[in-house]
Amino acid sequence: MIDSPERSGAAEPVRTPVIVNQGGRKLGERLAAHWSRPQILEHPKDAPAWAIPPHADVLVTQPSAWNGAGQSPPPGWPFGLHFIQVITAGVDPYPSWLFEGAIAACARGVAAIPVSEFVLATILAYEKDFDAIRIHSPSQWKMRPLGSLQGRCLGLAGYGAIGRAIAVRAQPFGVRIVALRRGSGPLDANVEPASDFASLVAEADHLVLVLPLTPQTHHILDAAALTHAKNTLHVINVARGPLIDQEALLAALDQGRIGAASLDVTDPEPPPEGHRFYAHPKVRLTPHISWGDVKATDRLVEKIFANLDRYARREPIEDIVDPARGY
Amino acid sequence: MIDSPERSGAAEPVRTPVIVNQGGRKLGERLAAHWSRPQILEHPKDAPAWAIPPHADVLVTQPSAWNGAGQSPPPGWPFGLHFIQVITAGVDPYPSWLFEGAIAACARGVAAIPVSEFVLATILAYEKDFDAIRIHSPSQWKMRPLGSLQGRCLGLAGYGAIGRAIAVRAQPFGVRIVALRRGSGPLDANVEPASDFASLVAEADHLVLVLPLTPQTHHILDAAALTHAKNTLHVINVARGPLIDQEALLAALDQGRIGAASLDVTDPEPPPEGHRFYAHPKVRLTPHISWGDVKATDRLVEKIFANLDRYARREPIEDIVDPARGY
Repeated sequence: MIDSPERSGAAEPVRTPVIVNQGGRKLGERLAAHWSRPQILEHPKDAPAWAIPPHADVLVTQPSAWNGAGQSPPPGWPFGLHFIQVITAGVDPYPSWLFEGAIAACARGVAAIPVSEFVLATILAYEKDFDAIRIHSPSQWKMRPLGSLQGRCLGLAGYGAIGRAIAVRAQPFGVRIVALRRGSGPLDANVEPASDFASLVAEADHLVLVLPLTPQTHHILDAAALTHAKNTLHVINVARGPLIDQEALLAALDQGRIGAASLDVTDPEPPPEGHRFYAHPKVRLTPHISWGDVKATDRLVEKIFANLDRYARREPIEDIVDPARGY
Repeated sequence: MIDSPERSGAAEPVRTPVIVNQGGRKLGERLAAHWSRPQILEHPKDAPAWAIPPHADVLVTQPSAWNGAGQSPPPGWPFGLHFIQVITAGVDPYPSWLFEGAIAACARGVAAIPVSEFVLATILAYEKDFDAIRIHSPSQWKMRPLGSLQGRCLGLAGYGAIGRAIAVRAQPFGVRIVALRRGSGPLDANVEPASDFASLVAEADHLVLVLPLTPQTHHILDAAALTHAKNTLHVINVARGPLIDQEALLAALDQGRIGAASLDVTDPEPPPEGHRFYAHPKVRLTPHISWGDVKATDRLVEKIFANLDRYARREPIEDIVDPARGY
């Protein structure tokens, strides 16, 4: 549970930090309302993200601020910054040097509920052929057998907060769940470990990509990996577009070597005008919206405020980004 | 668990019954293969369903055989029949006298898995606005907040095998589940009882009709019941069309007093050409297919054979229809 600022009550932080806000006006207003003596500096829109005043000790930032950032940090970086909070779960949109020098945390797990719901919606829509079964005339009133989740294999590439939330929701459907997790974190009961990515692809009826984009995972689902797939495989990407070699995916779909793809992310976003994803009958394309539900902003703000409170009270920061792992 | 005929092996029934099959040629072949000395009588297609040879002791039948049956049984009914097995879960399509005179069983629960999956697909599709979010051009690449199941109220009108299967699958999504059950059967943990149908309608964000059609439940969701609904209510009917007063439902949809309806059943089926269900933007109409998945026939046959085996072995029959309750 995130300690909500409301419930933590009137407890004043040990020291009110000087915070640079690059998260937009609305976030700034909520930051200003969070403490009785706030020191929030709104970042000027026309200034580069790395132009941080020397007396600021905290930075709250988001991806678009860092468009055009260089490969290496400006001289003197991170100036007086001690703590950087990014408002996204993924850290691939930022320059890697943002996470070096100061402690930097991401908003890990904040999208687990909406994304896991979206993934289950996608899986059930595929099994039940949901786009095709809706009818508009009496002549379409015909029986057709639908698919079922029971006995299918759900493959999870990644087992962080989102992967776990998917597994929890899929469990009662009687699916077999196989997951591939980097690192030493344990899987949950009834989730089988996959020995490698190829075997995960081979076993899955539904393959969900829920892993961070790093140099190691770039194009992890490529032509070679796709050779292991069942010809009915349903690929779901709710993480990052570049995890998939899109041309290899289209070739596999065209040649009937996999069944369908539900893509909420692409590379680039949006795909250019006329891209085959827009009209492919086996592709369900959505505009990177799986993370966002009506409660998403509140959840994000709660998470950020909880970390800022920890910083101010000199308690351990959560969700610190490991620059070596890249997430 | 149903005792599968395969696993029950070579055990010969105490007595091989003489069975009249009105379930079609394929079922007849499987019935004939089930015992080593079968006595299966294929019912002539042009004979009325109630024209049963006097030496038959078991009848296996299905709804369409009984079109045109009279209000009262033919003289001498049920002849030599001791056991009637209908291959549907609902018994409303048959004359009521079919369930009087001989022991009669239905295929209760055989559709619980596919129907519960279908209902969850429907609920998630509504929350995630699944028909609208699929995009076909770069200009449609826009963020929009989606709904979430977490914290919503799922109302179950009926809590038999299907209602329970829905509750089990909905539970991990963090929904509050309220159910209305006729009779004394217990609800499961974390399922709250509704005091009456009006309060069920009032509390629900998603209202699922999973109850049998009887004189008591005919038009249970009518204009009066709909006055209690939230204006975002999503009505789901996977049971029987006449449970809903369709004109009252359309009026509530048109006037924005409820949010949407997902109808897999209607009254009649199909709705006549030009019926408003076919084109209404708030109606998701499907052709009574929620029960049927790729394993439906196998599950049904297993269930029927298990009951026939019980009859032949003089063991208690399961899923006996209570004519007084009407299910």
